Amino acid sequence: MEKHLLGIDLGGTNLRVGVVTSEGHLVEEMNVKTESENGPYFIINQMIRLCENIMQERNIDAIGIGSPGPLDVKKGLILSPNNLPGWDKIPLVDMLEKVLKKKVILDNDANAAALAEAIIGAGKGRESVFYITVSTGVGGGFVFRKQLLQGANFCAGEIGNLIVDSEGPPHHTLNVGALETLASGTALKRRGIEQLGITGHAGEVFTLAMNGDKEAQKIVDHMITSLAKGIANIVHSVDPHIIVLGGGVMESRDYIMPLLGERVNEFLYPQLRNRVEMVSASLGTKAGVIGAALLTQQAAF
Amino acid sequence: MEKHLLGIDLGGTNLRVGVVTSEGHLVEEMNVKTESENGPYFIINQMIRLCENIMQERNIDAIGIGSPGPLDVKKGLILSPNNLPGWDKIPLVDMLEKVLKKKVILDNDANAAALAEAIIGAGKGRESVFYITVSTGVGGGFVFRKQLLQGANFCAGEIGNLIVDSEGPPHHTLNVGALETLASGTALKRRGIEQLGITGHAGEVFTLAMNGDKEAQKIVDHMITSLAKGIANIVHSVDPHIIVLGGGVMESRDYIMPLLGERVNEFLYPQLRNRVEMVSASLGTKAGVIGAALLTQQAAF
Repeated sequence: MEKHLLGIDLGGTNLRVGVVTSEGHLVEEMNVKTESENGPYFIINQMIRLCENIMQERNIDAIGIGSPGPLDVKKGLILSPNNLPGWDKIPLVDMLEKVLKKKVILDNDANAAALAEAIIGAGKGRESVFYITVSTGVGGGFVFRKQLLQGANFCAGEIGNLIVDSEGPPHHTLNVGALETLASGTALKRRGIEQLGITGHAGEVFTLAMNGDKEAQKIVDHMITSLAKGIANIVHSVDPHIIVLGGGVMESRDYIMPLLGERVNEFLYPQLRNRVEMVSASLGTKAGVIGAALLTQQAAF
Repeated sequence: MEKHLLGIDLGGTNLRVGVVTSEGHLVEEMNVKTESENGPYFIINQMIRLCENIMQERNIDAIGIGSPGPLDVKKGLILSPNNLPGWDKIPLVDMLEKVLKKKVILDNDANAAALAEAIIGAGKGRESVFYITVSTGVGGGFVFRKQLLQGANFCAGEIGNLIVDSEGPPHHTLNVGALETLASGTALKRRGIEQLGITGHAGEVFTLAMNGDKEAQKIVDHMITSLAKGIANIVHSVDPHIIVLGGGVMESRDYIMPLLGERVNEFLYPQLRNRVEMVSASLGTKAGVIGAALLTQQAAF
């Protein structure tokens, strides 16, 4: 019987469990609502039930989990993610290993998505891939020669905290002028509420901008300029072979991408202009489970 | 006869040629003044003479060159470095290969030094090493699992252009607020001349600061704060296992390092504070030849 990998994508809204080949092909996927209001043990029981269900039918080699941070990757703990209320230093890896009797690997959701996009998504075949997710927050992951860089403190790709400006809204953990305070969906929504009187989510700012609202266009332009500075900083650090952009805000990619290309050029060395390849993520919501499963295949140093 | 590598460190002041083992041990070194005023062909003839001299005695496997940029690494060209007057698109790799009949590899001097420090210097044994040189300019190189990241456009490690501020002196190719405009020896010297009336080099600013001059201390503090922001940006991008600091300005390491450690902490996520290891480079002027030689041993993708 062919060996498969199991990937778990733990999100605040959805819990996805998928069966993935060692090449990263998704052969089966289950998706339930997280019902995060029921707390960690309810969710972990769901997780175990879904895994056991699959493991009755298939020979599973190892299990990977992508989870929102903050995490203690080394100890396999979920610390206290914003969108998982009631979770606090939950030893998820130990709990799953005990019950499921398989090796379990944990990393954050952006790293899992980065790995998936690098191995079989929009970055496939490239020597180095920087994945950036622009959603409620801004995060990312960097994959070099198919190896995810976790970093000395498992903080590689934590680009939400990149300094790109001297000014910006105050935040309890992020730097003044940090990328996430200027270029996230949250930042866009806040400015939309304050300056445009929107009542819904960040997408409304894009809708207004596309319909010609000058003030909305200014807000989007500032957001894209900040994102461009962050990308330029990444390029001048590691000059990735491709930059893959995902996350909810990228649903407005038709508006963002052409403008972003122009702005990034403004912050690059002359010899780099028009030479930085940027594309949209290609795996959509499947990146999480695929990447989580592929975490189990990473080589140790 | 044991095979050796030949490393060439082409600098504006010194031309060094060294014989290096595949492990990175320097077994022989020759050092002549570059006499850059004599132009490229004089220097290249010197280079060939030194290499031929060594190759009469030793079995050389391949030759690596570290050179000041800008370069066209792919085509093996030296474009027009500031400190090598008269050089303009010189096909150094082709010229050396033709005469010396060996494979010749070219990369910039900061990348060569990064590789040397990562393989047998201050970063030895670490999974990832970010080397930073603070000298006339600010540059660097990143080595992951013993592989130098050259980047899609051979611009990995070009951290002089990292945006760390919204303001700073204008520059013809660097960003406003770029690290090099704020934290290089050149930046320090300029402020020393303008604000302190120094007449020599950047080191004088440190001497004044160490002797209690408040204005000099303020200048140094601003420079170190800018460097700290650059380092924080690197950490939040790739979270290196060690950061190795070299270059002429680091001769004032006793003054810089304690202050830099404090400042870096101010710009990091709370969980990263006091967890970023920073050390001085350990190979001194030998990093160039050793790293140049080791360039020839890098695996292709």
